[in-house]
Amino acid sequence: MSIQTPHNTLLIPGPIEFDDAVLQSMSHYAESHVAPGFVKVFGETLTLVRKVFQSTNPAAQPFIIAGSGTLGWDLVSANLIERGENALVLNTGYFGDSFGQCLETYGANVTHLKAPIGDRSSLEEVEQALKEKSYKVITLTHVDTSTGVLSDVKGVAQLVRRVSPETLVVVDGVCSVGSEEIAFDEWDLDAVLTASQKAIGCPPGLSIVMTSGRAIQAAQSRKTPPSSYYASIANWLPIMKNYENNKASYFATPPTQLVHALHTTLTQITVDVPARFAIHAKVSDKVKAAVAELGLKQVASRPECQAHGMTAIYLPEGLVPADVLPGLLKRGVIFAAGLHKEIATKYIRFGHMGVSVTDPKRGDIDNALTALKEALTEAKQAKGL
Amino acid sequence: MSIQTPHNTLLIPGPIEFDDAVLQSMSHYAESHVAPGFVKVFGETLTLVRKVFQSTNPAAQPFIIAGSGTLGWDLVSANLIERGENALVLNTGYFGDSFGQCLETYGANVTHLKAPIGDRSSLEEVEQALKEKSYKVITLTHVDTSTGVLSDVKGVAQLVRRVSPETLVVVDGVCSVGSEEIAFDEWDLDAVLTASQKAIGCPPGLSIVMTSGRAIQAAQSRKTPPSSYYASIANWLPIMKNYENNKASYFATPPTQLVHALHTTLTQITVDVPARFAIHAKVSDKVKAAVAELGLKQVASRPECQAHGMTAIYLPEGLVPADVLPGLLKRGVIFAAGLHKEIATKYIRFGHMGVSVTDPKRGDIDNALTALKEALTEAKQAKGL
Repeated sequence: MSIQTPHNTLLIPGPIEFDDAVLQSMSHYAESHVAPGFVKVFGETLTLVRKVFQSTNPAAQPFIIAGSGTLGWDLVSANLIERGENALVLNTGYFGDSFGQCLETYGANVTHLKAPIGDRSSLEEVEQALKEKSYKVITLTHVDTSTGVLSDVKGVAQLVRRVSPETLVVVDGVCSVGSEEIAFDEWDLDAVLTASQKAIGCPPGLSIVMTSGRAIQAAQSRKTPPSSYYASIANWLPIMKNYENNKASYFATPPTQLVHALHTTLTQITVDVPARFAIHAKVSDKVKAAVAELGLKQVASRPECQAHGMTAIYLPEGLVPADVLPGLLKRGVIFAAGLHKEIATKYIRFGHMGVSVTDPKRGDIDNALTALKEALTEAKQAKGL
Repeated sequence: MSIQTPHNTLLIPGPIEFDDAVLQSMSHYAESHVAPGFVKVFGETLTLVRKVFQSTNPAAQPFIIAGSGTLGWDLVSANLIERGENALVLNTGYFGDSFGQCLETYGANVTHLKAPIGDRSSLEEVEQALKEKSYKVITLTHVDTSTGVLSDVKGVAQLVRRVSPETLVVVDGVCSVGSEEIAFDEWDLDAVLTASQKAIGCPPGLSIVMTSGRAIQAAQSRKTPPSSYYASIANWLPIMKNYENNKASYFATPPTQLVHALHTTLTQITVDVPARFAIHAKVSDKVKAAVAELGLKQVASRPECQAHGMTAIYLPEGLVPADVLPGLLKRGVIFAAGLHKEIATKYIRFGHMGVSVTDPKRGDIDNALTALKEALTEAKQAKGL
């Protein structure tokens, strides 16, 4: 029996449903952040982050910091780029806009290469943009939570190494790490930032960032100091290195309970990382087929740019989210409303990540698809459609 | 019976022991950060923060953000002061040094008024310093966790209003909020920053900042934009206002489980805020008397500058923390080693905050005092002292 009070199933693109063991770790008794027991757990958790990223390069460096996913943007923007340098944002929705604002806050000159809603820019367009200016950093949102558009991280990274090898490749993986394949070393990425509450399956409150040796080098060879204290790589680097070497170290008190929960979920995930990506792809295919069968279109237009951890679904003409979400809730299922400003009233978002996908005994996905079908029928009838 | 696995009693100056109900809130099932249930809890939690600060002025504004206490320094430094403006740091230990570094990161000209170890500057010295320059901000560490020195927040605030009324009074209350009296409105403070894991009695992972109308006004009338995105008051202000008005709003995903835990502990604390300060003062007096009876001196020299939530205790000549802490641990009690660089090997720190103080049935304080006496005797015998 679950330790969790019976509740509606949370199938939004994060936070997601939690495994009992993860929630149990959240109520770990009080521990000193510098006691041997916690130091070991934090150190192991950092090592587990490497595994999720399929990284074995010792020059790569994971960071786990108390904060929301958003803090990862500050970590990148405050350390990897200096005032007046150029950043190219491959923009596939809401989160590209915001990442750009964060980069500008730290003085970057930001160019947005904006794809049409539901699509991503082609490699040819990216190549063209890269040739027009010298960019210190290129950013891409692996999965834009607002649209469910999947970026071609591997393809873009290869392209960058070919045409602009010094440019740092930064991936916003908030909605992808744990559900989409990422081979950090093999793809030669420089930073992937994420949060705990999406496909990683831990409650929100942790900013997790993986960086390459090249990125650390860029942070360390800045001409100007970073203009953030809490998001300074220089302040956190010795802490992360020490904990992973089983040595206590202090810059700010780590969120001990959340770190325990992260340790628990990463231990589960890293049993078989490729299998985790495969099951997310398989369940995603099933969801997308069911959505098509209902006669519905996805916001992400082409199959190759559709995420595997969420599906953004256009509603039938004449319906808005408020017509359908209550019918889902009545059936015990929570989806999210639209988020992209220009189309917000036209679509809903279904998150299929973590235990809802990996534990078929829960029946979450089948129940959700049945509920979606019924709620849509009901809503159409109510509107006389 | 407690839900917690039997464990050694954590009596360091944070994190501290947790009430069962608080830990139970940490394992709350998955919830959307914009669902009505969570919006209500977050909104109420913000209102409870006002109560802890005994504040009823609607112009005052609480912030609750995923992060360590350190993030509060960034919130102050990035928003309340501009590049080239002056900050006066009343420095009573380790945390004054670090707050100064954070202010400098954001371009402030920092002057430290450094008290001797274990003491605080007199009001006359502060007045003298305030008359030498025009300061945008004055900061003081209410309780310096490294030394247990208590600052005279009320006295300094009164002084500032008299001799430099435009200067913003900023209090680092990481080790004081919940154990030391703070009357935010009455004392006319501008910002008090704290964290969840000390006298507030919640697991670490939340930065909590209370600001005055004057502080918000200063942030909003800046000539230059703040150079932080995640620590920008402009980005968070509408979110906090909306949640407290029971409206969902998005800038970054709040740490839903930690917010539940904070709600639980603040509900307990705000039943009677003055009574909470009184019990901490009473238990602190008892600890200090017992320490004196053992023939030991405190790092905080004079009674009026001794904190009520912790005691920093000089060890007898010839002993270092590593001689005594294992003896305490053997008896189920965890104290902290010294932290202040110049005297680190000479003292230990005993945190007496939260449930260990407010729930005498636990016997935490009495057990700790007995353990301290025994561990000292044992250590002296072992060293032939």
